[in-house]
Amino acid sequence: MNTKKLPHIVIVGAGFGGMEVARRLAKSPVQITLIDRHNYHLFQPLLYQVAIAGLLPSQIAYPLRTIFRKQKNLTFQMGEVTSIDFNSRYVKLEGSVIAYDTLVLAVGGQTNFFGMNSVEQNGLQIKDIESAVSTRNHLLSMFERASREADAEKRRALLTFVIVGGGPTGVETAGALAELISHVMVKDYPEMSLTDARVLLIEATEHLITAYPDELRKATRDLLRRKNVEVLTNTKLASYNGQQMTLGDDRQIPAHTLIWTAGVKAAEVVDHLGVQQAGSGRVRVESTLQLPQHPEVFIVGDAAYLENGDGKPLPMLSTVALQQGKITAQNIQRILKGQSPKPFHYKDPGLLATIGRNAAVARIWGISFSGFIAWVIWVFLHIYRLIGFRNRVLVLVNWAWDYIFYENQVRLITKE
Amino acid sequence: MNTKKLPHIVIVGAGFGGMEVARRLAKSPVQITLIDRHNYHLFQPLLYQVAIAGLLPSQIAYPLRTIFRKQKNLTFQMGEVTSIDFNSRYVKLEGSVIAYDTLVLAVGGQTNFFGMNSVEQNGLQIKDIESAVSTRNHLLSMFERASREADAEKRRALLTFVIVGGGPTGVETAGALAELISHVMVKDYPEMSLTDARVLLIEATEHLITAYPDELRKATRDLLRRKNVEVLTNTKLASYNGQQMTLGDDRQIPAHTLIWTAGVKAAEVVDHLGVQQAGSGRVRVESTLQLPQHPEVFIVGDAAYLENGDGKPLPMLSTVALQQGKITAQNIQRILKGQSPKPFHYKDPGLLATIGRNAAVARIWGISFSGFIAWVIWVFLHIYRLIGFRNRVLVLVNWAWDYIFYENQVRLITKE
Repeated sequence: MNTKKLPHIVIVGAGFGGMEVARRLAKSPVQITLIDRHNYHLFQPLLYQVAIAGLLPSQIAYPLRTIFRKQKNLTFQMGEVTSIDFNSRYVKLEGSVIAYDTLVLAVGGQTNFFGMNSVEQNGLQIKDIESAVSTRNHLLSMFERASREADAEKRRALLTFVIVGGGPTGVETAGALAELISHVMVKDYPEMSLTDARVLLIEATEHLITAYPDELRKATRDLLRRKNVEVLTNTKLASYNGQQMTLGDDRQIPAHTLIWTAGVKAAEVVDHLGVQQAGSGRVRVESTLQLPQHPEVFIVGDAAYLENGDGKPLPMLSTVALQQGKITAQNIQRILKGQSPKPFHYKDPGLLATIGRNAAVARIWGISFSGFIAWVIWVFLHIYRLIGFRNRVLVLVNWAWDYIFYENQVRLITKE
Repeated sequence: MNTKKLPHIVIVGAGFGGMEVARRLAKSPVQITLIDRHNYHLFQPLLYQVAIAGLLPSQIAYPLRTIFRKQKNLTFQMGEVTSIDFNSRYVKLEGSVIAYDTLVLAVGGQTNFFGMNSVEQNGLQIKDIESAVSTRNHLLSMFERASREADAEKRRALLTFVIVGGGPTGVETAGALAELISHVMVKDYPEMSLTDARVLLIEATEHLITAYPDELRKATRDLLRRKNVEVLTNTKLASYNGQQMTLGDDRQIPAHTLIWTAGVKAAEVVDHLGVQQAGSGRVRVESTLQLPQHPEVFIVGDAAYLENGDGKPLPMLSTVALQQGKITAQNIQRILKGQSPKPFHYKDPGLLATIGRNAAVARIWGISFSGFIAWVIWVFLHIYRLIGFRNRVLVLVNWAWDYIFYENQVRLITKE
């Protein structure tokens, strides 16, 4: 326990930001405790693939104890943070209290329904493994129910799939779901005509994937149309009762499935910390990602509110979290050496979104790609970024298989 | 709908028995409706691998609609049978009624707790995907809790894993769990000494895997001992409260985990059919597997009670179900041709049980194998029997990986 004398760095959250801090401190003279409420790191960018039965949870999640097995200065603890005392410098979990010298809050985000209770109660989301698997089970059950439904009206409602939110997740989910129907379900349900099946993508603003340059927004729209996704922009959702959705203009569309991807906010835990919050509940931090009045507390990723050069808040993206994790590790090391911390500047690494099989849009090194080349870049980038060699191989096998045989193997309806 | 004129064969249950009947009638002039409460076929012999985090559910389960995609005379319907009218010849599901000319009941079995409510309430089982995943989550959580437990007594209780039942499932689970601890968990939990961890295998009778010849029973015991499984035969379980188990001789053993594999009985649905039942609730059938007074109803697999040549009831094994499925398909064809059905005779194809990595016991063509050769036979036989080429590849990749690196990748604790 000579490690006791080393400064104790407590990292809450093992998403992209927290993981990056932990890894970059591997060689530093510190004792790290990493806390997460799950025992695995989740590769969120591919979570939508679990929801549309394209990938298995274990292909995009990896046990944290295995990841950090070789990092001797780190201990993992599974648990949920209930409160934090910034003055006495300790973190409370159920059943234990952990004191820190330096705290890194990388608690991430959660779905933001903007107070639309009817959607929160009756809609689906793709936020964690459990919700993605529930979404998968729900989607697959709709086809089973439709296959037994004699009434054409009711069958159409069972086969109408609404995705709300024109961001990357919404676009990727809509494209992949449309392909699941047109390439896989048509084969699985020969007794039923799937021309009734509809995939709607609803976006309140004028554009899909707003962050992208205009030519890519157009390309995205065209690619989705070609996959028979009905794109409705400038369209607001008013309410959803589980069978029927009501739009802002009072139009009603019968649909048993609504997947909400239209909002993210900081994880709820930060609401109870008595800190100053900005839009989406994110915590206002210094340019160095330190908490005002508490230089020993860093906040990284979705939970941190910091403005970009252009005065816009930084987007809630894994790339932002990764870069913030890197600078936070550096700043912790600088402070240990008596140096002053450096401010964070986001370097846009480019944009990349897939629209189902063999189509994607990308903006890299200032160049816009769309279609197959962009998709190949997307596949390899994501497989490369996936943690764990074996996972990469399995994901590749999966995709190769799906790509060649238009086949998804994960279509199990499991009870919860 | 010219198929309407063809005799309608309704098969309830898509386990080994029901699947075999359905496949062997593929070329017959019949219309088949296959009913199962799940949308997948489950390869039960490997379910324990899901429970010990060795395989993924989707590696041993396969969507039924995909399996029967090319069989044009079969329609699949997902649903639970609520009642059967043998006189009017129809099957009732929630929301639908299906008339039959010939009925095949292949509803399988369920766990038999022999009225031990304390075990049913506080113990774990490995009967379907859901219970196997719950068992996995429970097992993995015990290690997390133990890693936070300061009290040595309590930690020992958290790390004491009891498996009740010395049949193949119990033996295979105990062996695999012991290896998970000694090869994987020791690496994942460097902060905690796992010498406290115990795996107990409890069997009420004198022998493990009673059906096997004596030399293999001995070999099994030795192999388990070598893997540090404590084998207690002639030991009865009296009760279990979730923290402590009480044995027949009032001995008490603190243990937070008890997996019950000691009993199987016919699926509950047959209790409500008003038919004559024998031991384990199985339905008494003619030697042709027909229901007395109802020659148009066949019962195959765990749900059927038939005695072997030696007067013993046939075991509840997949091999029995498969052979009964085969003869039932033949008898249905014979009856359609106006021939009389043939009686069923079980041909023992041999016995095979694995005891964790690289060790197994087998009895094939009258020869007894044990150790590595038996294990290789077991691996290839099981992979071969697994449905779906891609699954086989993935299972092989998984096992090869585990075998070379002593690594299990599926150790995710998911909420239910």
